[in-house]
Amino acid sequence: MAFQESEYHPYDFANRRHIGPSPAEIAAMLATAGASSLDALIDETVPAGIRQATPLDWGPALSEQAALHRLRLTARKNRVLTSMIGQGYHGTVTPPVIQRNILENPAWYTAYTPYQPEISQGRLEALLNFQTMICDLTGLDVANASLLDEATAAAEAMALCQRSASNKATAFFVDHHCHPQTIAVIRTRAEPLGWEVIVGDPVTDLDPTTVFGAIFQYPGTYGHCPDFSAQIAALHDAGAIASVAADPLALTLLVPPGEMGADIAIGSTQRFGVPLGFGGPHAAYMAVRDPLKRSMPGRIVGVSIDARGNRAYRLSLQTREQHIRREKATSNICTAQALLAVMASMYAVFHGPEGLRAIAQRIHRKTVRLAKGLESLGFKVEPEAFFDTITVEVGGLQGVILKAAVAEGVNLRKIGTDRIGITLDERTRREHTQAVWRAFGGDMLDRELDHDIRLPDGLIRTSAYLTHPIFHMNRAEAEMTRYMRRLADRDLALDRAMIPLGSCTMKLNATAEMMALSWPEFADIHPFVPSDQTEGYQEVIGDLCAKLCAITGYDAVSMQPNSGAQGEYAGLLTIRAYHASRGDEARNICLIPTSAHGTNPASAQMAGMKVVVVRAAENGDIDLDDFRAKAEAAGERLSCCMVTYPSTHGVFEETIREVCEITHAHGGQVYMDGANMNALVGLVRPGEIGSDVSHMNLHKTFCIPHGGGGPGMGPIGVKAHLAPFLPGRPDGAGRVSAADFGSPSLLVISWAYCLMMGGAGLTQATKIAILNANYIAARLAEAYPILFARNGRVAHECIVDTRVFKDAGVTVDDVAKRLIDCGFHAPTMSWPVAGTLMIEPTESEPKAELDRFATAMLAIAKEAEAIRAGRMDRENNPLRNAPHTVEDLVGDWDRPYSREAACYPPGAFRVDKYWAPVNRVDNVWGDRNLVCSCPPVESYQDAAE
Amino acid sequence: MAFQESEYHPYDFANRRHIGPSPAEIAAMLATAGASSLDALIDETVPAGIRQATPLDWGPALSEQAALHRLRLTARKNRVLTSMIGQGYHGTVTPPVIQRNILENPAWYTAYTPYQPEISQGRLEALLNFQTMICDLTGLDVANASLLDEATAAAEAMALCQRSASNKATAFFVDHHCHPQTIAVIRTRAEPLGWEVIVGDPVTDLDPTTVFGAIFQYPGTYGHCPDFSAQIAALHDAGAIASVAADPLALTLLVPPGEMGADIAIGSTQRFGVPLGFGGPHAAYMAVRDPLKRSMPGRIVGVSIDARGNRAYRLSLQTREQHIRREKATSNICTAQALLAVMASMYAVFHGPEGLRAIAQRIHRKTVRLAKGLESLGFKVEPEAFFDTITVEVGGLQGVILKAAVAEGVNLRKIGTDRIGITLDERTRREHTQAVWRAFGGDMLDRELDHDIRLPDGLIRTSAYLTHPIFHMNRAEAEMTRYMRRLADRDLALDRAMIPLGSCTMKLNATAEMMALSWPEFADIHPFVPSDQTEGYQEVIGDLCAKLCAITGYDAVSMQPNSGAQGEYAGLLTIRAYHASRGDEARNICLIPTSAHGTNPASAQMAGMKVVVVRAAENGDIDLDDFRAKAEAAGERLSCCMVTYPSTHGVFEETIREVCEITHAHGGQVYMDGANMNALVGLVRPGEIGSDVSHMNLHKTFCIPHGGGGPGMGPIGVKAHLAPFLPGRPDGAGRVSAADFGSPSLLVISWAYCLMMGGAGLTQATKIAILNANYIAARLAEAYPILFARNGRVAHECIVDTRVFKDAGVTVDDVAKRLIDCGFHAPTMSWPVAGTLMIEPTESEPKAELDRFATAMLAIAKEAEAIRAGRMDRENNPLRNAPHTVEDLVGDWDRPYSREAACYPPGAFRVDKYWAPVNRVDNVWGDRNLVCSCPPVESYQDAAE
Repeated sequence: MAFQESEYHPYDFANRRHIGPSPAEIAAMLATAGASSLDALIDETVPAGIRQATPLDWGPALSEQAALHRLRLTARKNRVLTSMIGQGYHGTVTPPVIQRNILENPAWYTAYTPYQPEISQGRLEALLNFQTMICDLTGLDVANASLLDEATAAAEAMALCQRSASNKATAFFVDHHCHPQTIAVIRTRAEPLGWEVIVGDPVTDLDPTTVFGAIFQYPGTYGHCPDFSAQIAALHDAGAIASVAADPLALTLLVPPGEMGADIAIGSTQRFGVPLGFGGPHAAYMAVRDPLKRSMPGRIVGVSIDARGNRAYRLSLQTREQHIRREKATSNICTAQALLAVMASMYAVFHGPEGLRAIAQRIHRKTVRLAKGLESLGFKVEPEAFFDTITVEVGGLQGVILKAAVAEGVNLRKIGTDRIGITLDERTRREHTQAVWRAFGGDMLDRELDHDIRLPDGLIRTSAYLTHPIFHMNRAEAEMTRYMRRLADRDLALDRAMIPLGSCTMKLNATAEMMALSWPEFADIHPFVPSDQTEGYQEVIGDLCAKLCAITGYDAVSMQPNSGAQGEYAGLLTIRAYHASRGDEARNICLIPTSAHGTNPASAQMAGMKVVVVRAAENGDIDLDDFRAKAEAAGERLSCCMVTYPSTHGVFEETIREVCEITHAHGGQVYMDGANMNALVGLVRPGEIGSDVSHMNLHKTFCIPHGGGGPGMGPIGVKAHLAPFLPGRPDGAGRVSAADFGSPSLLVISWAYCLMMGGAGLTQATKIAILNANYIAARLAEAYPILFARNGRVAHECIVDTRVFKDAGVTVDDVAKRLIDCGFHAPTMSWPVAGTLMIEPTESEPKAELDRFATAMLAIAKEAEAIRAGRMDRENNPLRNAPHTVEDLVGDWDRPYSREAACYPPGAFRVDKYWAPVNRVDNVWGDRNLVCSCPPVESYQDAAE
Repeated sequence: MAFQESEYHPYDFANRRHIGPSPAEIAAMLATAGASSLDALIDETVPAGIRQATPLDWGPALSEQAALHRLRLTARKNRVLTSMIGQGYHGTVTPPVIQRNILENPAWYTAYTPYQPEISQGRLEALLNFQTMICDLTGLDVANASLLDEATAAAEAMALCQRSASNKATAFFVDHHCHPQTIAVIRTRAEPLGWEVIVGDPVTDLDPTTVFGAIFQYPGTYGHCPDFSAQIAALHDAGAIASVAADPLALTLLVPPGEMGADIAIGSTQRFGVPLGFGGPHAAYMAVRDPLKRSMPGRIVGVSIDARGNRAYRLSLQTREQHIRREKATSNICTAQALLAVMASMYAVFHGPEGLRAIAQRIHRKTVRLAKGLESLGFKVEPEAFFDTITVEVGGLQGVILKAAVAEGVNLRKIGTDRIGITLDERTRREHTQAVWRAFGGDMLDRELDHDIRLPDGLIRTSAYLTHPIFHMNRAEAEMTRYMRRLADRDLALDRAMIPLGSCTMKLNATAEMMALSWPEFADIHPFVPSDQTEGYQEVIGDLCAKLCAITGYDAVSMQPNSGAQGEYAGLLTIRAYHASRGDEARNICLIPTSAHGTNPASAQMAGMKVVVVRAAENGDIDLDDFRAKAEAAGERLSCCMVTYPSTHGVFEETIREVCEITHAHGGQVYMDGANMNALVGLVRPGEIGSDVSHMNLHKTFCIPHGGGGPGMGPIGVKAHLAPFLPGRPDGAGRVSAADFGSPSLLVISWAYCLMMGGAGLTQATKIAILNANYIAARLAEAYPILFARNGRVAHECIVDTRVFKDAGVTVDDVAKRLIDCGFHAPTMSWPVAGTLMIEPTESEPKAELDRFATAMLAIAKEAEAIRAGRMDRENNPLRNAPHTVEDLVGDWDRPYSREAACYPPGAFRVDKYWAPVNRVDNVWGDRNLVCSCPPVESYQDAAE
């Protein structure tokens, strides 16, 4: 006897969970798109000449359960010791309420960068809190909403010094007590730009007249806490800019950089509750004096008003962003570390100034005790005054002590051949101190040692900080939980609706992919531990690199870049090092099409290249004649070209091989931007069609969540001839990120994704991404011109033209804001073509959500039509007044359309409608009245009394 | 040199995180309450004569970090093997998206029982899905929204048979293939009620004419899957009722009980994605034929309409609940397993019927392979036809094989002395099957065995199930995530606002307390594994019992009862067994004050006792004269009294010692209901003031979250003389729950709470709970009479009288629903006094939230005043029309008050307002038009097209 066996595979993650459309939906969508089959659609879309010959295959895809099991086995290969290494990374306690409600909450981690302020008020408030916290702690005027890591923040500080200094110097002074990785990244950054880096003792080696700026570390990497006031004054006298890399926790006890006269402060907020994660992700910060604010890199949250005059947050000064400045940009910072900045800010809200001070004092007391114990054992401890870090002279005992410490479960820092560094943190307990003493040959109890204070005389902080009420709210967990929930509820993220952003691949961030991130075996590893403690990480990184090579056709991968833009920069540096190794130092021209993302020219500029822009043909493709002419003109000065594939216009250009051939013919290298990798995986290998290097946005194609504007990871893949020149290799480009593997804890996400998809699943995902885009294009074509197609097919995204509504006075902004009324995040606006929307639905969206979106878009077109036809008022209409809020409903209604029409346009949910918390935000007002820290008390009194 | 050291203790969980009011707030609140100090307030509130002499102390409180570390160390003492024991408990895969977004999401786990339907539409929909799923799988008409566990559900089925049978029989037949724990719980339940339990073979031992009903297990505990149609028909012919305990996963392949003619089906939905947890919590189910629906125990979700005529869910037939029926109740079921039922329903939505069928088929195929392998090794395998369970005859090899299996990492079931049971599940992988073969002495690969099917001939299911669209929605994770988010957003739980429920202590459920629950070391333990695998659990249970004894003054604790009502029942059975041991079988009178919670008389009734009601005095206290008279009248028939302390009127009665003395003087025992334990911990030990037994609602006082209506835990503490008679002890009351320790995985929550609070913290929490209640009373006294105080002080809750608005036509319902407009869950309504609200703020609420609540309540009083004074319409006013929804705002506004007044009453948040998804729900309509499964398709089309 037998029953009919089910054909259904319940554990098929790829086709049942990750890929949105079901088989039946796929069939229906193919019909709408006019394709006879999925493969036929792909054949029509992707040129035959570039398709990969062999399929992706690394064995069967794992179920969620099997992948989690595999991750557990791998995790156990990491050994979690207590790391007292310091060097910018510290043990910290992530408050469970923050871990669960921020880090592990899709409402926070799946959000996009808050470019659409109306649906981002929650995370904008949290980031404003971050900025306020940084301003207060550093004693400076304006802070940004995070940078990638402390070392790159230092490099950004150098660049800011260079462009802000009033002298004409070309050298930059670096405190020899800066962390080694900071010095390395500064050197990498300075070299292509022709700036000299002078590393030395600020007291003896700094000649202020020779530099445009300087950076000091505070406390220094070996624990010293000097007063830099004199050096800073001297720098100012010489027309130079002073920056300080400062530990924000130390600043709760010590005089802040701003009070020493510093112009810039940078640093890491990792120890504010963000797990070590083997080096990242963590949020770095930058704060500046007011006159520098408009030159500061990175995103800045500011306070503005909405159409009703109510307070609203937004990203300020967006016109400074690199997508506007392009090759004139001074920084390519784009992705930041929003999620981690939010965590750090919540940590400060959770503890408040009293709590932070108490934590810092506790750490200091323990450090004093530890030092006394070591002194009583006869060791010389430096420096005399310190916060949390001491250095011990151990002579020939170094190896023995380090080994003994490991045997006691503690990692200490090896300094040179005869010293050991020890840094304490929030997690240091009595057992750890005692373990250190035992490693040094002593056996004592810390209660035998009274503790006094060894902070530097004259540098005890007396100024207040975190005085804003937000840091003094009741810190009961009930209140904290509700505050985080209220903020989360203001925002629209992937857990409520699709986010159809072109070029930003907002696909599913599956829970199973996210879970391992919080496991102690991945979370609690310091980046500089001995390698025999990180075998789990090595397995993740090694296997993920191998899979990325298989996917891309490259031969080697560097995991160092921790954002897409960092990947571009690292890739170009790799090309530069390659040319240099062949004596081709003169090759410094980089060809970039007009349609390129703004980070391309910005990165080229940072890599010391001269950008030559290549025209686009009418159809959006690269103008091949212009390309050929400019390559020829560059000749032996041609370093490389940067192309995006499929193009930023969302098309698989036929000419890609030719572009590569022309470049190679002139001795150049091809950099293929990986932003659109989601259209290629399993179908086309960049390394097989002529590209030499690409970055891969793991936060786009490989499921790392966007986190509301970071974290990201942008590893680069290269062909074999470039491999020796990757960052960190002996002959390669210098260090580009603080940690060897960028933000390695994120890699478990991408690895889990690859394991659960398998090669076939990844390939199917790409096909469905293309189907979804073509389905949307087919649905919208009746109302919107679809720009740029090939064979009538778009790639994984499509550009729809809203300029057809121009005669009705309807702008692309109106369409985007009206989509909020329908419960959607707008697509990418006016890029790469002004007045258009670029829509990338990704493979993760089921048909119903695509249909809901199409319904909304078509209804918007009808509204525009009604305006054009005079059936709706030209100024007072649902498009212009969008988004509509509850405030609109509550107040008097003097509009020539109904409340119903305003709030429930087609596509909007009825019961479950998302309500924007503010009306349309006034951008101009915000930039004119720049306020970048928390507004005064009364505006937080939300409860109507 | 020195700095001023911080007095602030950042890691003080008790005072900084758990207790809401800060020290400054406490001072302000004491002033408002007119108390000179916290201790003075407590002295005024709690009678001196009952205060405990020694403080609670078990060493210093742990920080969150230290507690989690301690939990990790304890967790590691559990050994996680693969359990193939079956017996009603199965390995299962909790889909990560459900784990994170339901089980670990405070929006779901902190919700209260959905008595207020307007703020509970999300979980009501999920529970309706659960009911629909159960109806479909069992082939019956109506299901309830879960019961505590399969064994208690079986006991409830027996009781339902007894009251529904048309014959007058007094015996109940139990299939000898029922799980042993089920038989045990049935025996416990039957004995006090005088019903005979006949355990036997349904084919040979069942005489339908002698019984009021029968229960069969399907598949049986040893794997058999017989057709019970003939027995059921015979039962019906004899006027008896037939029930079947069925595995819902098996029902995806096998003919369901309903199609065999059964009247009742019960079972466990644990294997639908709910972790084993050493025995619980899991959701049991009950489904019945239509004619039995109004007699079914437990809560039933039904469909009704709201004031606008829109669909709305609610709890149906609430008038059946025990708080109405009291001593006439036939069941004391109150807390159920809502959170786990939601998980199980989401598991069904996640997999759909195809997925469930495929999972079942996969398990069956593996079972067939396993059986074949064992047969090829020469073992006799029973039964011939099975689903997932087989029994192997092993003779004297039993011990060797069981031991070998453990060595292979697998637990098998010991049956008698010569058989071994093996049950497969969703997590069984090839390695496990092979491990079993090796344990049986064989070594083979399963691919050598072809598989056929050994399901019983003639019992292959052909009927459809889960046909409703909700089980056919797109099962992409994006869609699942959004569905769960939409439902969560409809509800108001502790993560958004206080839930000031009298007698239901809705305090903080801290994240740190919740985290260990999901760890595999606690989640993946089968309840019947060898005890050397559960040393971690034993540590948790042992230490928690010791702490509960220290808190209560009792000498022994039983962790078996998995709800408060179960605790009452178990406590009364313990008293009964004690009397019986002394030859006092005649003692069967239980004195219960009129003010008692309805479960008290219901439990007494179930324990075979005769309830005698004691009057209340005017001030709400027990009328001592009446009590004395009734105790005397009972005389040698007095079994016990049941009192609640502080009383359900929220007062510390002076007479409590006297009540105990009178009871003891007549040979009775004192049962002190633990519902109000939150007013006692650290101040008063029930065991020291004369009580003999109490249950402790760990889901009230000890931080287990309410989960939207369960889980709960109601362990009982007893004085030493009762200890031998606790459930499960050799001379004790019989088994009351399926698992030895009820729902043990929850105990890590309460243990973590005790560890992080310490004795001093728990005591302070009690004091602040009392302060918060007195503060609320002081704030509200200007507008509401505060009923029942002593010395002008209430205990940890206060009763405010809304009958003062009677002349304005304003009801307590109006006040409760208007509170929704202010963003609050209403307090307990009309209990213990009709027309009042009982408010228990708990210690976890900060002052600002209490003030917000007071603001709302005072504004409501002003509205009532305006109605009374004729300034507002008597019928068409904001109270009567509450809650107001967005639908109200969108539509025409024909009301004599403004939209603003409607939606933003004082206390409501402005930007972050909670909007009820429906208007006031029509209860009468719902009970008249009873629909208890998912309504048809079109009502799920929420998107406006």
